[in-house]
Amino acid sequence: MTVETDESFGGVTPDAARRLLLGAVQAFAERGFHATTTRDIAGRAGMSPAALYIHYKTKEELLFHISRVGHERSVAVLEEAVEGAGDSAGRLAAAVRAFVRWHAEHHTTARVVQYELAALGEEHYARIVVLRRRSEEILREVLQEGVATGQFAVEDIRGTTLAVVSLCIDVARWFSPEGRRTPDEIGELYAGLALRMAGYRDGGR
Amino acid sequence: MTVETDESFGGVTPDAARRLLLGAVQAFAERGFHATTTRDIAGRAGMSPAALYIHYKTKEELLFHISRVGHERSVAVLEEAVEGAGDSAGRLAAAVRAFVRWHAEHHTTARVVQYELAALGEEHYARIVVLRRRSEEILREVLQEGVATGQFAVEDIRGTTLAVVSLCIDVARWFSPEGRRTPDEIGELYAGLALRMAGYRDGGR
Repeated sequence: MTVETDESFGGVTPDAARRLLLGAVQAFAERGFHATTTRDIAGRAGMSPAALYIHYKTKEELLFHISRVGHERSVAVLEEAVEGAGDSAGRLAAAVRAFVRWHAEHHTTARVVQYELAALGEEHYARIVVLRRRSEEILREVLQEGVATGQFAVEDIRGTTLAVVSLCIDVARWFSPEGRRTPDEIGELYAGLALRMAGYRDGGR
Repeated sequence: MTVETDESFGGVTPDAARRLLLGAVQAFAERGFHATTTRDIAGRAGMSPAALYIHYKTKEELLFHISRVGHERSVAVLEEAVEGAGDSAGRLAAAVRAFVRWHAEHHTTARVVQYELAALGEEHYARIVVLRRRSEEILREVLQEGVATGQFAVEDIRGTTLAVVSLCIDVARWFSPEGRRTPDEIGELYAGLALRMAGYRDGGR
């Protein structure tokens, strides 16, 4: 696996706490949450296990912070994208482009966040669910607005939102930097497909 | 986690080999491939570790057989669905309905198959890739055929195929038997969305 210095964690301070999160992302991605030891994570961050405990009490706490930062960043990216992107079609296309690009560029973090969700403790899980609902809400509002103005034709808004979100998230599973498409190209393709899913009349035809 | 007696493995004989695969699916889904021991798998199948080695030489071999059976079954389901389902629109809808239903009903097996792919040895991985290409091929042929007859309007057939396959596979990640939609309902919704992605003129409108 290539070393990924995910800038999503740039805001995490102090530096040691940030390095530990990056080490944990790598370890969880390679071996899975349950097969990873805090010793392994500390080692990747060039630290002792004792030094790790100054910043994070448990391995689960590391996973929670990875999930929190990952979700917060992807929600922020969605929010920025829909702001001032014009009409509903412009907003949907911008949202999908940005959300896809995030999941392609941060595929290692995104995989950990998505596939290790069940390893979170109850309270932490509840906090992450709130952030997950927010991404869905942003896209649902764009679809609702487009249906209200007649730009979109969607019968099942909740189901279509779920499908669009799912399509974007799954990019993290199959994306490879060595693959034939760049994150931007996938974003462009998927923006067109999402417009079609929304029943946009001129979308992609 | 609920015990899943995945009938996809019904053809695996003898009975002990089948029970070991089912135990491995459960263990891998709960703890991940790397955190699972062959002792744990044998225990779930009500057997000793020594008895396990009669059937499978390594843990990786268990994963390979799970992946092989999972992929063979989902390819078979796709092939059956497109056969005799009428025109391109009918074939695409039938394929998506069947593929979605498989990934919802077999979400535990599908998750193991999709998320533990990197744990396969090189030779086994190569054999699984052939099966993965086959699912894409089946859907790509339906899209190509529909574009040729003018029923569909797709510029990027390869990219659209990838997106439709991805949308169906990701059902395994988020599907829950306790959720608000049944596998059949999701299949129906997604069949309509896939027709839209294919630019089918009357699809879902």
